[in-house]
Amino acid sequence: MTAPAVTTALAAPVAPVRDTVLRPLGVHDVRITGGPWADWQRDTRSRSIPHGLAWIEREGVLDNFRRLIGESDAPERRGWVFSDSDLYKMLEAVAWDLAHGADESAEHRIDDAVALIRRTQEHDGYVNTHVQAGLETRYGNLARGHELYCAGHLIQAAVAEVRATGRETILSVAVPFAERIVSDFLEGGRDDTDGHPEIEMALVELYRHTRDRRYLDLAQRLVDVRGHGVLGPGLFGPAYFQDDVPVRAQHDVVGHAVRALYLLGGVVDIAVETGDPELLSVAEAQWASMLDGKTYLTGAIGSRFEGEAFGDRHELPPDLVYGETCASIAAFMASWRLLLATGSSRYADLMERVLHNVLAGSTASDRTHFFYVNPAQRRRPQRAVPDGEKPVRTDAPGERAEWFDVACCPPNIMRTIASLGGYLTTGSTDGLQVHLYASTRIDLPAAGARFEVVTAYPADGRVVVRVLDAPDDVFEIALRIPDWAEGATVQGEPAAPDADGYARVRRAWSTGDELVLELPMHPRLTVPHPAVDALRGTVAVERGPVVYCIERPAEAADAVDTELFEIDADAEVAETAREGVAPALTLRGRVRDDSAWRGSGWRARDGRPERTGASAAIDAIPYAEWANRGPSQMRVWIPTVG
Amino acid sequence: MTAPAVTTALAAPVAPVRDTVLRPLGVHDVRITGGPWADWQRDTRSRSIPHGLAWIEREGVLDNFRRLIGESDAPERRGWVFSDSDLYKMLEAVAWDLAHGADESAEHRIDDAVALIRRTQEHDGYVNTHVQAGLETRYGNLARGHELYCAGHLIQAAVAEVRATGRETILSVAVPFAERIVSDFLEGGRDDTDGHPEIEMALVELYRHTRDRRYLDLAQRLVDVRGHGVLGPGLFGPAYFQDDVPVRAQHDVVGHAVRALYLLGGVVDIAVETGDPELLSVAEAQWASMLDGKTYLTGAIGSRFEGEAFGDRHELPPDLVYGETCASIAAFMASWRLLLATGSSRYADLMERVLHNVLAGSTASDRTHFFYVNPAQRRRPQRAVPDGEKPVRTDAPGERAEWFDVACCPPNIMRTIASLGGYLTTGSTDGLQVHLYASTRIDLPAAGARFEVVTAYPADGRVVVRVLDAPDDVFEIALRIPDWAEGATVQGEPAAPDADGYARVRRAWSTGDELVLELPMHPRLTVPHPAVDALRGTVAVERGPVVYCIERPAEAADAVDTELFEIDADAEVAETAREGVAPALTLRGRVRDDSAWRGSGWRARDGRPERTGASAAIDAIPYAEWANRGPSQMRVWIPTVG
Repeated sequence: MTAPAVTTALAAPVAPVRDTVLRPLGVHDVRITGGPWADWQRDTRSRSIPHGLAWIEREGVLDNFRRLIGESDAPERRGWVFSDSDLYKMLEAVAWDLAHGADESAEHRIDDAVALIRRTQEHDGYVNTHVQAGLETRYGNLARGHELYCAGHLIQAAVAEVRATGRETILSVAVPFAERIVSDFLEGGRDDTDGHPEIEMALVELYRHTRDRRYLDLAQRLVDVRGHGVLGPGLFGPAYFQDDVPVRAQHDVVGHAVRALYLLGGVVDIAVETGDPELLSVAEAQWASMLDGKTYLTGAIGSRFEGEAFGDRHELPPDLVYGETCASIAAFMASWRLLLATGSSRYADLMERVLHNVLAGSTASDRTHFFYVNPAQRRRPQRAVPDGEKPVRTDAPGERAEWFDVACCPPNIMRTIASLGGYLTTGSTDGLQVHLYASTRIDLPAAGARFEVVTAYPADGRVVVRVLDAPDDVFEIALRIPDWAEGATVQGEPAAPDADGYARVRRAWSTGDELVLELPMHPRLTVPHPAVDALRGTVAVERGPVVYCIERPAEAADAVDTELFEIDADAEVAETAREGVAPALTLRGRVRDDSAWRGSGWRARDGRPERTGASAAIDAIPYAEWANRGPSQMRVWIPTVG
Repeated sequence: MTAPAVTTALAAPVAPVRDTVLRPLGVHDVRITGGPWADWQRDTRSRSIPHGLAWIEREGVLDNFRRLIGESDAPERRGWVFSDSDLYKMLEAVAWDLAHGADESAEHRIDDAVALIRRTQEHDGYVNTHVQAGLETRYGNLARGHELYCAGHLIQAAVAEVRATGRETILSVAVPFAERIVSDFLEGGRDDTDGHPEIEMALVELYRHTRDRRYLDLAQRLVDVRGHGVLGPGLFGPAYFQDDVPVRAQHDVVGHAVRALYLLGGVVDIAVETGDPELLSVAEAQWASMLDGKTYLTGAIGSRFEGEAFGDRHELPPDLVYGETCASIAAFMASWRLLLATGSSRYADLMERVLHNVLAGSTASDRTHFFYVNPAQRRRPQRAVPDGEKPVRTDAPGERAEWFDVACCPPNIMRTIASLGGYLTTGSTDGLQVHLYASTRIDLPAAGARFEVVTAYPADGRVVVRVLDAPDDVFEIALRIPDWAEGATVQGEPAAPDADGYARVRRAWSTGDELVLELPMHPRLTVPHPAVDALRGTVAVERGPVVYCIERPAEAADAVDTELFEIDADAEVAETAREGVAPALTLRGRVRDDSAWRGSGWRARDGRPERTGASAAIDAIPYAEWANRGPSQMRVWIPTVG
């Protein structure tokens, strides 16, 4: 095993080697300087990461390693087969967080964890505490074993560390494992793969870091063998793990949502690095199928508890949605890759929807409680999860929980927030593209320029891009005009987005110049596609990128019952400003009187009770804030009067 | 262990000792003489039962017994922990079927199976192949082990056999097992119970057969200990197996639907035999909560795949419904018990809804293919299950399957159909009550009378009750007026049902007299409760007790797309008569044009596309007939135009 040659240093979560339409910027180059995401990044360091590290210790994730080298007397391995990945994702979060400033104790945590992993690692590079505990043979149950999935997360953590800090600590254990897998699955000629995609993205990033082509070849091979039934039927059939149809023939997203979307991310990476427009076009088609009838207004993804799966097109129940946080993060990751590859704002539109709604709502304001499942309706307040307990994912509690029996989501949130700066802006020698609006400082060394973005978005729609150090040449600043932003202006003139969805200003710039975007932030009503049965006869309320909900906390018994409120869709929606966050809204309508409807869930149409109700108003708050006041009733889609 | 004294011989599925408002009649006294249920009973004997027995042999259910006594070289026990119950339910079906006429080979089957069970049975009466295979200790995992559940099914089979045939073959192994459980759980003072209710009904019936009060006491004890968290949290929390709230404090149906409803049946039985009006009133409240927002129009019960559970009130998604066949059968059983206890037709209304729709649809016309999950909407044709394969229950296939990995439903259907005569009619010395309409011959020895019911229901609404041997005294014939039957007539006069829902004719009768009921069988439209989000803006079509659906088989590509059809709710519905079965209907409306809606599942309300479409007509067929033409699109609730 030879140490890889490090040849690149773009400190971005996704760092393509080949030219892409848009070029990412590193996490040191785009710093979030204020607003909700800056707060969240700070809290991720001070609260979420320590909380997560304590929970994985408590859950035995580290003892699973220690006991293999005699450093723990834990009698049995604990947790799910994939629990090693909880550690690796926490390490990735710690690594990205280090980009925001040195933290010696965090570096020690990485050192200690890596020392433990190294001593557990077999001489041939393999490491997996489930297999090494004797609970399964190596690659003996690829369909369910998650061995390559765990390896992928280790590799992603390693890449994050070296990009964020230049340190190769994690890389020192990840590369031998990657080499082991190259030997076994690429050079060894195995023709199967892991039941849970994830390693594909990791291998491409390792290739990007090392420029060792074998990692890319292995990623491609693992994608190519998939779809031929190599994993057996499993419990839910081969579509569950995208093994029924080869990727190139699959134009729809199906099966387990997180698996489908991690795979999609890897497929885009491979298409980019191998220069394969056909494969890229398949990925675009899959993504489009996801948006067109398999994505919730909140950015939640994956309708079904059963198999944690995508439903049929237009199967979007607000109450029964699974909507795993990880699936929306996976959609965010895949969308970013497609944005880089194509330059189309549609991918950023979905990223923004995910970020401001389902992802923002995944975490409580204390940053130590999380949602795994993200409903858009709760008919009744459901039990809270007492601190210290970890619900199974399917428990659909009424409040965020500290941790989960399957603990994939919290570390996933942390690594995403810690690296968020890398997902906002792209740039190159002759242009800067601002995709997601937040207050940032942007260094663009390629153009010898610096900028800042100043905004209170999404509380306010004004976004100012200020030139701090002007580029020498004519230079283009491109501002994404969101798909909802009818009436946006740039420098006071109606924005004229191009076919890719960007308003572009190309000119010579001077230091101090400002480019002002005004996005229309009035509340607006949104209707569902007529084929979405679960939402027929309802509207949702949005304002800018923020989806609203109506909520009645369990303790607010006097408040309007969200299950009885019907909105007057023609009435004005009033705003109540709130400091630093999107305003509260007041909706007008009536409280439906169901008293004539007792008995059963149906009635003869002839002689059915008239629908009546008393006039009422109800407050709406950003969806992301729901359940911050304890268990509650909540709904996003509101029936209309009549 | 002493043999019980047999003291009663009412050959009914439910045979109360104490007086109930209505008195059941035995399966020999009410014979179904023609029409769809007679056909199905005949096919149950000739097709379903042989098919089921072959499948349980193939699945190793019998080998699980044989290997314990050295008669099979099967290396391992096969199947789920509760697979013994598959045999017991098949034996119950065989036993009830024997009431329709002797069948020596069927008797031999019972003899052979009982010989096998007896030789497997431990000396102390206990028998359970999972535990005896050493896979669990006795009562070591009551929450999941299904030991008492299996015992309950053995007891029910035994009671069925002795009632239907007078033979005590199964009883000879069931009573020792029951005695074992009495010793351990009643006399032994254990304060826990089985995770899956079922034995409660069985023990009460064994009490009714033997008059041994200890069985009733045990049933009551098992109900009383429940609801105190004696089963631990399990995977879904204690509400899953009705262990979070004691029965007497529970006024709503919650948790796993089959468990909740088997328990409900047992609770009614106990309330009746202990003379406990408070407990009966709790049972009525639970049942009412089920009907009022937790029951589908088709009679499907249990909304959620997750935990196979009841959803929240008004959570009735037609597409994502679990609707296990067993849950509807359990509702049928519990409703019958409540009907006997209270005399209210509301319970028969639900039985009729279940019988003509979800239960009728559970079985293919060949009587050897079954549904486990019963959706009310299929957006696209789903894969068929090849013969010889057994899907896991959750596979939600597009066609009925020969068998299931969890095989509870098919034998449950068979035992219900084989004993169906026992669920139609009640009677006593001074009256006959006809609850469910079918052509039958009714012997009422208590009144010295005989009747026949002649009808082509539900193809036709005319029901003739003819007196074959008149009762000596004044006598009341009560005819249930279904809740939907606005405009029913009796003897040509408007029917005037009493508060219990029955039109009663009390008079002296002569042999040859006829009482003629005419039920209005015009198609009618039904609307959902306004709180049922999943059905807002739709109507369903019913005719008599039959719920209709629109369907497009996969092969009928030219037919109207059921997902695009919108019904004109004010247009006339045309009937096309079909021999012996309910007519086909033709619905008028339009085919919605969704072409302006591509992109995502939502759109700004301002500027949303107009809903347009071309006029169209579509055929509707009884819901029970769906998927008889191969995988198909199907829906019961149809959006209205505009």
